Amino acid sequence: MRIEKDCVGKLEVPDDALYGIHSLRAAGNFPITKEKVDPLLIESYIQIKKASITANYGAKATDVIKYNTVVDACDYLLEHPSPESFITPAIQGGAGTSTNMNVNEVIANVAMKLHPDVFIHPNDDVNQAQSTNDTYPTAGKLAMIKRLPKLTSEINRLIEILDELSKKFQFTIKLGRTQLQDAVPTTYGKTFHAYASLFRRDLKRINSAENELKTVSMGGTAIGTGTNTTKYYRDHIVDEINKITGFDLKQDEDLIDAVQNTDHFVAFSSSLKTLAVDLSKFSNDLRLLGSGPQSGLNELILPKRQAGSSIMPNKVNPVIPEVVNQVAFEVIGFDATVTAASEAGQLELNAFEPIMFKSILTAEVHLARAIETLVDHCLDGIDVNVKQCLDDVRKSAVTATVLSPILGYNKTTELIKTATKENKTVPNLLIQNHILSPEKVKQLFSPEYLVNGES
Amino acid sequence: MRIEKDCVGKLEVPDDALYGIHSLRAAGNFPITKEKVDPLLIESYIQIKKASITANYGAKATDVIKYNTVVDACDYLLEHPSPESFITPAIQGGAGTSTNMNVNEVIANVAMKLHPDVFIHPNDDVNQAQSTNDTYPTAGKLAMIKRLPKLTSEINRLIEILDELSKKFQFTIKLGRTQLQDAVPTTYGKTFHAYASLFRRDLKRINSAENELKTVSMGGTAIGTGTNTTKYYRDHIVDEINKITGFDLKQDEDLIDAVQNTDHFVAFSSSLKTLAVDLSKFSNDLRLLGSGPQSGLNELILPKRQAGSSIMPNKVNPVIPEVVNQVAFEVIGFDATVTAASEAGQLELNAFEPIMFKSILTAEVHLARAIETLVDHCLDGIDVNVKQCLDDVRKSAVTATVLSPILGYNKTTELIKTATKENKTVPNLLIQNHILSPEKVKQLFSPEYLVNGES
Amino acid sequence: MRIEKDCVGKLEVPDDALYGIHSLRAAGNFPITKEKVDPLLIESYIQIKKASITANYGAKATDVIKYNTVVDACDYLLEHPSPESFITPAIQGGAGTSTNMNVNEVIANVAMKLHPDVFIHPNDDVNQAQSTNDTYPTAGKLAMIKRLPKLTSEINRLIEILDELSKKFQFTIKLGRTQLQDAVPTTYGKTFHAYASLFRRDLKRINSAENELKTVSMGGTAIGTGTNTTKYYRDHIVDEINKITGFDLKQDEDLIDAVQNTDHFVAFSSSLKTLAVDLSKFSNDLRLLGSGPQSGLNELILPKRQAGSSIMPNKVNPVIPEVVNQVAFEVIGFDATVTAASEAGQLELNAFEPIMFKSILTAEVHLARAIETLVDHCLDGIDVNVKQCLDDVRKSAVTATVLSPILGYNKTTELIKTATKENKTVPNLLIQNHILSPEKVKQLFSPEYLVNGES
Amino acid sequence: MRIEKDCVGKLEVPDDALYGIHSLRAAGNFPITKEKVDPLLIESYIQIKKASITANYGAKATDVIKYNTVVDACDYLLEHPSPESFITPAIQGGAGTSTNMNVNEVIANVAMKLHPDVFIHPNDDVNQAQSTNDTYPTAGKLAMIKRLPKLTSEINRLIEILDELSKKFQFTIKLGRTQLQDAVPTTYGKTFHAYASLFRRDLKRINSAENELKTVSMGGTAIGTGTNTTKYYRDHIVDEINKITGFDLKQDEDLIDAVQNTDHFVAFSSSLKTLAVDLSKFSNDLRLLGSGPQSGLNELILPKRQAGSSIMPNKVNPVIPEVVNQVAFEVIGFDATVTAASEAGQLELNAFEPIMFKSILTAEVHLARAIETLVDHCLDGIDVNVKQCLDDVRKSAVTATVLSPILGYNKTTELIKTATKENKTVPNLLIQNHILSPEKVKQLFSPEYLVNGES
Repeated sequence: MRIEKDCVGKLEVPDDALYGIHSLRAAGNFPITKEKVDPLLIESYIQIKKASITANYGAKATDVIKYNTVVDACDYLLEHPSPESFITPAIQGGAGTSTNMNVNEVIANVAMKLHPDVFIHPNDDVNQAQSTNDTYPTAGKLAMIKRLPKLTSEINRLIEILDELSKKFQFTIKLGRTQLQDAVPTTYGKTFHAYASLFRRDLKRINSAENELKTVSMGGTAIGTGTNTTKYYRDHIVDEINKITGFDLKQDEDLIDAVQNTDHFVAFSSSLKTLAVDLSKFSNDLRLLGSGPQSGLNELILPKRQAGSSIMPNKVNPVIPEVVNQVAFEVIGFDATVTAASEAGQLELNAFEPIMFKSILTAEVHLARAIETLVDHCLDGIDVNVKQCLDDVRKSAVTATVLSPILGYNKTTELIKTATKENKTVPNLLIQNHILSPEKVKQLFSPEYLVNGES
Repeated sequence: MRIEKDCVGKLEVPDDALYGIHSLRAAGNFPITKEKVDPLLIESYIQIKKASITANYGAKATDVIKYNTVVDACDYLLEHPSPESFITPAIQGGAGTSTNMNVNEVIANVAMKLHPDVFIHPNDDVNQAQSTNDTYPTAGKLAMIKRLPKLTSEINRLIEILDELSKKFQFTIKLGRTQLQDAVPTTYGKTFHAYASLFRRDLKRINSAENELKTVSMGGTAIGTGTNTTKYYRDHIVDEINKITGFDLKQDEDLIDAVQNTDHFVAFSSSLKTLAVDLSKFSNDLRLLGSGPQSGLNELILPKRQAGSSIMPNKVNPVIPEVVNQVAFEVIGFDATVTAASEAGQLELNAFEPIMFKSILTAEVHLARAIETLVDHCLDGIDVNVKQCLDDVRKSAVTATVLSPILGYNKTTELIKTATKENKTVPNLLIQNHILSPEKVKQLFSPEYLVNGES
Repeated sequence: MRIEKDCVGKLEVPDDALYGIHSLRAAGNFPITKEKVDPLLIESYIQIKKASITANYGAKATDVIKYNTVVDACDYLLEHPSPESFITPAIQGGAGTSTNMNVNEVIANVAMKLHPDVFIHPNDDVNQAQSTNDTYPTAGKLAMIKRLPKLTSEINRLIEILDELSKKFQFTIKLGRTQLQDAVPTTYGKTFHAYASLFRRDLKRINSAENELKTVSMGGTAIGTGTNTTKYYRDHIVDEINKITGFDLKQDEDLIDAVQNTDHFVAFSSSLKTLAVDLSKFSNDLRLLGSGPQSGLNELILPKRQAGSSIMPNKVNPVIPEVVNQVAFEVIGFDATVTAASEAGQLELNAFEPIMFKSILTAEVHLARAIETLVDHCLDGIDVNVKQCLDDVRKSAVTATVLSPILGYNKTTELIKTATKENKTVPNLLIQNHILSPEKVKQLFSPEYLVNGES
Repeated sequence: MRIEKDCVGKLEVPDDALYGIHSLRAAGNFPITKEKVDPLLIESYIQIKKASITANYGAKATDVIKYNTVVDACDYLLEHPSPESFITPAIQGGAGTSTNMNVNEVIANVAMKLHPDVFIHPNDDVNQAQSTNDTYPTAGKLAMIKRLPKLTSEINRLIEILDELSKKFQFTIKLGRTQLQDAVPTTYGKTFHAYASLFRRDLKRINSAENELKTVSMGGTAIGTGTNTTKYYRDHIVDEINKITGFDLKQDEDLIDAVQNTDHFVAFSSSLKTLAVDLSKFSNDLRLLGSGPQSGLNELILPKRQAGSSIMPNKVNPVIPEVVNQVAFEVIGFDATVTAASEAGQLELNAFEPIMFKSILTAEVHLARAIETLVDHCLDGIDVNVKQCLDDVRKSAVTATVLSPILGYNKTTELIKTATKENKTVPNLLIQNHILSPEKVKQLFSPEYLVNGES
């Protein structure tokens, strides 16, 4: 054990630990969850540290030896992530300071292991010209941005397979349903297309919210005034991060604002929540359209994924949409958490970013995986019960809606009532009673006309 | 115009206004909604004022003339509510002080109109031994308690009609559905009974939450220390309120706690939210079971309440359950509001009770009316499509679940698969293939056995 | 009483009523709230009706007489709103059909009153080529768009006054606070500027969400397939609406999607919720910075708006920020309602738009008015307690943070500890102990340097 | 690899796996989170299985060999939990069937390993007379009940330490604050006592909600009708569970209701949410009262737990209350998830219990640990800045409230204004101007009288 010291006092730290006193105290203070800080957040933080020493070196605020040493340590850790060294819990007090200090301590120790002759101080060197208050939200944004491609790629796959299904079932007529009551007909082509349109919009919305995340607070340090930074550093730090990450971050024009406000996270979380709501609606539809097999709507045939019941033999359930629903409910909850945490910000800082980051970073993963399993295990291989769909259209009286422009709403109502009472179809009634010519009836009630109307 | 004065300055008040300077300032300060403070809250407040002057008189802290005068004014206002005098908006800042002062001012002015020779001061006399901080939550609780009987009576009517339906459709067999897939059979008797059981529990839960509301903060004044009260007053004020209202309120043993904490409201709101969730699930079921008429489950026939579509003739929609769903969503939102407002309390007071009161008092009304229309316009007259239900059971393979204890899960699975493939019923297959005797098959697949199992 | 008839049966309608049987049934079916459908929604609906008859006339689907008659009726009602004729409640089942039919019936009756010789049918003529399913969301979007300028104008006023305050208090140094603990100094200029930056972003976000609302479902009729429309109508209806309203709506490229999905509303509601969260944080700050007067932070002096307490003389409370907080909590609840309602959409329609519309249209009003009262009654006239702010900075040890780059984090920590223990200021300690020259100390601890750092 | 078969087809299962085909399919179907089903849920499930075979044996529905074999397997697994065998993910579709089947398969395989000569079938034997639909919610309830003592014990410790602090600071006078403005005085004794009262109520509320969880659905099997159970089984199964667990569960009188409704979980979650709201309010107060050290309220001195800032030397932050706040926000989110999931139940089942269980079981752990760290790391060792508190009371004009009953509200207002303007204390002014005798002034403004009033 080695002894380390901070403003609180002394503490024993395991000899081989790369972390230091701050990390160790934090690990003891926040025993809420065994889950550690998200590795993507740690990675992003290390990139920020590397960019910072570079900018500080450019500013002549540090020397070439320290610069090289810290850069080496950062590079080493980016190549050899050391999960056992990053011990602070995902849910932590302290506004992220524990995460920042954990990174500072590990980099300093790795640096001194790689270059035993150089002294690197976690605060003075690794944290130079930085504060948790400007680096932590920046690292959080970086992590969210990095995690997003998996999600957007899954949304894109979802859109693609919906487009394919739309083409495949282009001519598969089916009854529409509004308020769960039989409505005028449509096709499964149009149905799948509408879902694709919906998720296209979600994609756009998420990308637009992501764009907001690209404005960062670097250079603001403690409260945005830039205490303990040089002008050079402030002017170059974001560029250095961009060089390392390949992103196009911008520095906020108002760093005071950037350090204290978390509306970016609420807006980004909202875009994920909207996606979740849409996924839930879609899953509800899949489950409903696939209900049966004998006594439900029985229109969609979902791939069988597993035996459905421990007691009812041969029962198969829509387990994939069901898990998607649950992820949606979870994300709606995450958004409530982010909302509450953001509202609780006070004065120059919001101390509750850790729970926002955990909620959002988890939402991104769960949504991506939910869509992935939906595409691979439910939509890939989904089939339409064409016969059932056609039967439903044929026996439905609501197709008579096409008569309204010709006969009027009231007379059409009466016709449908008569047809229903006499157990006849409306087309037959029209012909029998010489209301319309057989040709006209045939044209009006053709699938083509029913679904596309006047062209 | 008359001139009134307060610690802020002077203001012109209309000559004939029963309210005074405080009310008028508040009306100008909070122009959020045109909705005024709930009349039930005002009424409760007046009862508190009457009880207070009585307890103060008992304590010899006021004289008989003032006592009689204020009591007369309270009685007058209880008999002749004067909505135009209570001008403070439902959404108001100031932790309810505006509502309290509005009541104080109106009572004082009415008192002096009734007894022109007596001087009654809104603060010194009407508000004697009170603060907004102890009276406002008490008035809020009184209003919530008073509003509840309408809701609980509607829940009781809901339970009654469900019990009746349960008896009426006691032998109407139907298919169960789990995860929207065909499951073993049940009856509509059991189905309606289950809803009744659910709402019985809601009723119990709401009454239990209501019970919490009966502990009040009277006697605590500003922060619960009882500043400016006499011991006599503190010991008798709750009894006086009980005499006037007929309720059985108790004084909180810890008045500091009672003045500052609003967990009672969160708990009561939660009980309403749980009811809302249950009503929404029930409405969803009604809409689903009534879907069709030709291409849905088509089991329930809901009373026709209005033409369903402006374009589709003869379409009828489940408009009553739909409005219940929407009230449920509204109440879920109210609960989010109450949660946020309660969390925002600080130190010796929660300044955000006005929005809690508005949310909860509105939830009570909307839920009561939603259930009322559900009972009167949807459940009263609802019918079951017995033929459809029976057909569903007959053609469903899942009834073969009863074979599992005899043949085993695997063999039953195979049987169902064969039956489905060969388009036969399982009972027929059993007899044809001499697997079980016709008598045994008949017994196992009798509605009685399917629904109730071994007795 | 006149007798009207629909597919449900007959009903007596008051002779002089401009509404008809559908409206009357709806008024009876949904007795949840006395609040009627928002007049802005009605107005927008009438404009849609006018645009529709025009497009139908262009399509030669109606004659010039009916065209002129219906246009006259619409123009009449736009000029003479008739609130007593629009009787359907704000919370209604039926997916908006009752609202649509109420408008259809009133227009038809007004038309026939204006032109007694012409027969206009609510469905066949006024609703021609339309369904509730495409018109209702369009009317809802129009109403939300129309209501927005008041809100954005108030946000702009808020930004303006914050900018003014930022200039006014440009040099007023104050202590920053992170995690409610003393932090490095800043100025009230920067503080107010940061709030302005925040609300600028909200404005942008709301406008961007508003933009989504401009894509509409007109021409889709019942489920988006365009049943009972002509091609001409579909191609021209949105243009006609734009001509009448002056807006730049676009027709959705996928009308099936446009009819069934409500993600636009979730996204718009989310943007309002984010504003609400930010307003709440700002209000919390105002209340905290204005706490005291003797035993709080006592930095901000809010205009006195009303006597604060019924019991504590001369107490004045931050009633305006308090009401803003409550509106924020309300809007957070509205967003939960909109989320739940949107998730509940099924298949070709979401039947729960009425509660979404009510929630969003109310949120727009309440937020606008909350900001209005915040600007007029709290920010206009707000003052800073300059002496208190300066004292706080002077006595605070945390300003010694500027020493870190020179002395290192650890040594600075020790210095602060010593200063605190010995009850000295850090600058004095530095000079006394000859750690830094008096000139250097003076430069480092100058307000200019403390607040702006190295330039 | 061994080959297993189900109604979907064949699958290779690792030779040494104790789980089977169902578990393996599920693990592949739901790759949302790496987190597995909560071990407490698994344990509870095994106890249910043991109770079931016992009841089946009592019913003579299984033989003594199978009975002994399955009991042995259950006992073995209860003593040797085998986390690697329970592979189904915490977030899963299928309404819990995967969890149930995982347990069935592992027990069957362990049974046959312990007794190689006996054949045990996962469905026919281990799942005999059960369905996921009655066992899964029962196991969930058992797990929640088992997890609760840790939470209630932490709440009790919280109450105890608050009671101790209440005694310790019984005579420490401090200023009250309402709406963040100076209010009449109180003591830290009363303050801590009020928090204790609050959490006492939470404890009671949680225990009351827990009580609801004790009514279970065992015996209902698939949809509550008890398909494939014997009467003996139904009559004895709950007793058998009670014997094994030591709990006092009751069988629901309406098993249809018990299988399909999840209001118990909403109610239990609500009780946890209410606790969360209260913990958040308490944490907010701790952070506010501890704000400073120099420029905040500076009344409470929280134990120093870790260096607060990476940039500001010697800064110490209230990191423990901050983490409690975040857990509270998380639990508010969990409750939103549970609400949405419960509302989504359909007909005879709610398929979304897995996410409810995960949310609630996690909430119980996080709340318990949050309180634990709050007690151990923040309240144990907390101190009051007595001097600051006393100074605040002495300089505050609001103590003059005690004059109101003597001088009247208006005159007291004037006195305070004069005192403030002339920078005098009110007591001095009273004596100087001969308004009250020095003795009377002394009595009125004594701490004793200020805090406790007339006794």
